[in-house]
Amino acid sequence: MCQLLAMNCNTPTDIMFSFTGFALRGGNTDEHKDGWGIAFFEGNGVRHFVDHQAAVDSPIAALIKSYPIKSKNVIAHIRKATQGVISLENCHPFVRECWGRYWVFAHNGDLKDFDPELAGAYRPVGSTDSERAFCYLMQEMRKRFGEQAPSTAAISDFLRQICAEIAAYGTFNMTLSNSEALFVHCSTKLHYIVRQYPFTMATLSDDEIAIDFAAVTTPQDRVAIIVTEPLTCNENWTSFLPGELKIFIDGDVVRNT
Amino acid sequence: MCQLLAMNCNTPTDIMFSFTGFALRGGNTDEHKDGWGIAFFEGNGVRHFVDHQAAVDSPIAALIKSYPIKSKNVIAHIRKATQGVISLENCHPFVRECWGRYWVFAHNGDLKDFDPELAGAYRPVGSTDSERAFCYLMQEMRKRFGEQAPSTAAISDFLRQICAEIAAYGTFNMTLSNSEALFVHCSTKLHYIVRQYPFTMATLSDDEIAIDFAAVTTPQDRVAIIVTEPLTCNENWTSFLPGELKIFIDGDVVRNT
Repeated sequence: MCQLLAMNCNTPTDIMFSFTGFALRGGNTDEHKDGWGIAFFEGNGVRHFVDHQAAVDSPIAALIKSYPIKSKNVIAHIRKATQGVISLENCHPFVRECWGRYWVFAHNGDLKDFDPELAGAYRPVGSTDSERAFCYLMQEMRKRFGEQAPSTAAISDFLRQICAEIAAYGTFNMTLSNSEALFVHCSTKLHYIVRQYPFTMATLSDDEIAIDFAAVTTPQDRVAIIVTEPLTCNENWTSFLPGELKIFIDGDVVRNT
Repeated sequence: MCQLLAMNCNTPTDIMFSFTGFALRGGNTDEHKDGWGIAFFEGNGVRHFVDHQAAVDSPIAALIKSYPIKSKNVIAHIRKATQGVISLENCHPFVRECWGRYWVFAHNGDLKDFDPELAGAYRPVGSTDSERAFCYLMQEMRKRFGEQAPSTAAISDFLRQICAEIAAYGTFNMTLSNSEALFVHCSTKLHYIVRQYPFTMATLSDDEIAIDFAAVTTPQDRVAIIVTEPLTCNENWTSFLPGELKIFIDGDVVRNT
């Protein structure tokens, strides 16, 4: 299996603290060492880093841990291969373009016998069930809405339906962003936290590293972190319910979508 | 305007020497400081780095200069903005997927009033003439060949025609790769060199750095480097002719395509 990490904020924020703990699970505190990746939206552009090396050994992961790339939407993934060999094209997140926006996707889980017809504009380059699911989702979204980009609420309704359909084949925890919103579907296990004023100290679960968020934020900042297993040992993380889709905009959960 | 750099090899090779000279033109020895980018194919996967900072100031460019990422097809670009603001989404190279392969594209030149209808699966995310040209090229290629990936020879014939069509709007020096071949169209200015046994010493034009290729290669290696302006001062670079499309496979120019 794999682990997911995502961030959605109301102001561009770096992810160095969370990624430092998360990357340790890529071969040190946990066994997800068959590649990793991270994508940062910056405006409408995307910085996309993937690596088939273990995150703990990767010079590119070392850069991400030390170089503050600021973003309002980030999606990261560490891989333990279940389907598909260890190779760059099988590393998450995956990126495709639709309606003049990039869409970034990562998946945790295992889909059995999921082999939908992919005849349209989105085809997998690698051999994972995850990329097949992403291409299917994009294909069906284009089919549903045609040439005109729909509202975030309409996308959410569509995702609720298609995620349930895909999750019937196995485990489908997934993160998806088009830079306007972060969509998160939980099939079995995901946690989140919304950090906002008054900010507190946080200590990583995977290393003896602590941060005083009050010292590095303004009172207006709001940051949501979504992750498979909680990253810190002294904060209250909320569990997703199985089958739940949550939409994050400006660092908080959107109600009534 | 901008500058282009590309590499095609018969064995995975790093581009640190060439990129070191090239990146200096991104704000030091030349004025192309409005962003840069580089994409490396690794198998069917792509490592894609873009940055709106000048290449001479970028920590990510520093990593590329010092970390040997080995690839058979590389496309790089340094930008001096003519159309489109300085932002991440306007940095080359651009990446799209077609027929289950990634396609990587970079452009040097300026296209006037180039505004084709982009109604299909490929739409620009940024605001450059270059990304419009890439999306148009991909759209027309899909339209021409349908759902089945064509041969490299058929792609070459198609590109000869579409590059001439696009070049009617201005300057269209471009590099394109799908990991199987590197396609290069010259509208005004491009140079290339094929390095092979017996390898020699090369000295950068933009810095006092020399390399003895004999010490870092095997006799079987063959590497083609394509660049706007020659990167070394003691090798014989060949100029492209205006209107010429060359196809590089396994580190050499393909004849009879």
